Amino acid sequence: MGSRTLEWEMIGPEVEELIRMLARLPGLGPRSARRVALHLLTHRHDVMAPLAETLSAAADAVRACSICGNLDTTDPCGICSDAARSNGQLAVVEHIGDLWALDRTGAFRGRYHVLGGTLSALDGVGPDDLRIPALIARARAPEVAEVILALNATVDGQTTAHYIADRLSGAGVTVTKLAHGVPVGGEIDYLDDGTLTAALRSRRPAGAAS
Amino acid sequence: MGSRTLEWEMIGPEVEELIRMLARLPGLGPRSARRVALHLLTHRHDVMAPLAETLSAAADAVRACSICGNLDTTDPCGICSDAARSNGQLAVVEHIGDLWALDRTGAFRGRYHVLGGTLSALDGVGPDDLRIPALIARARAPEVAEVILALNATVDGQTTAHYIADRLSGAGVTVTKLAHGVPVGGEIDYLDDGTLTAALRSRRPAGAAS
Repeated sequence: MGSRTLEWEMIGPEVEELIRMLARLPGLGPRSARRVALHLLTHRHDVMAPLAETLSAAADAVRACSICGNLDTTDPCGICSDAARSNGQLAVVEHIGDLWALDRTGAFRGRYHVLGGTLSALDGVGPDDLRIPALIARARAPEVAEVILALNATVDGQTTAHYIADRLSGAGVTVTKLAHGVPVGGEIDYLDDGTLTAALRSRRPAGAAS
Repeated sequence: MGSRTLEWEMIGPEVEELIRMLARLPGLGPRSARRVALHLLTHRHDVMAPLAETLSAAADAVRACSICGNLDTTDPCGICSDAARSNGQLAVVEHIGDLWALDRTGAFRGRYHVLGGTLSALDGVGPDDLRIPALIARARAPEVAEVILALNATVDGQTTAHYIADRLSGAGVTVTKLAHGVPVGGEIDYLDDGTLTAALRSRRPAGAAS
């Protein structure tokens, strides 16, 4: 790999550092990071400098919501302070991206709670490393009727869902989770056995609205 | 698409602007730009702020070489000011990325000249829009024996190569271009007809060193 980085040694430590940082962004590798860096360097005034300013401005403006863990320019965030939303439902997600994906659907008008990850014995992540204590406290509020566990259908996600459901049993709140099934537009032939089995077990009358 | 951008309207114009900028970088689209932005926003102190600083530092430090058009922290660039390189050969490339790709091979130890693009009647790009006048002037220097046209094997690249070869005829300099042929490691079965035809026409004795 030594000779592969020659080009950047040629052009100074600032650029080497830039590539290194870009290469660690999600979806970028060493090769695409070099391409992005080259694009930036050849458009220093119209792309690179404005991007640096926008990054600074956004980093300064955005903060974590102290209630749900969402990101916004205000604290509490726009969702937590939206009076039109219901306090009766609390959707629990792993990451902020999941919150945004759910909210984009427009199908949920309650509040959210971002855990910040999943429990993981392997990685040494326990309940207190996530925002689980804060969730238990919020779920015990009298106005909360339902906690919807919108966690990923992975082993860690489902382990975390079980743990939370256990902790909330007897708290006077209904705990639900997202349905498994055939994705809309999905083709049976390409689905894994687990999804098909779940879809079969949760089958419903053909005339019913979904 | 309106509802797809909802998430960013939620979180302020700074972030919307950031996504818009990221989405225009090479290799990123709206979806991956959102993913990168989310990653940056969730790592504001350890990733986002340092990246902004590095971008600023690199944008300030790097400048275009006034001789060859390469980018470096010095002008003339490291290649143009390297006394160990030959002044007798001048490799002409379209973009800085091509220069770096060639130089990475270590197979060329002469000087470079970056055109900044190709002639294009469609896009209204003429010789004076590229660094062609500067190339003609450099190529006429008595120490230059060979101009190697390392332009892309595209219609515009080859048109530009022809134009430059014409302009340099009678200037007392040998003009060459890169060989066409089978890429090293390439499989005959997957090659296009044009490459195969060129490789066949330029065939050479099987015992010869390449």
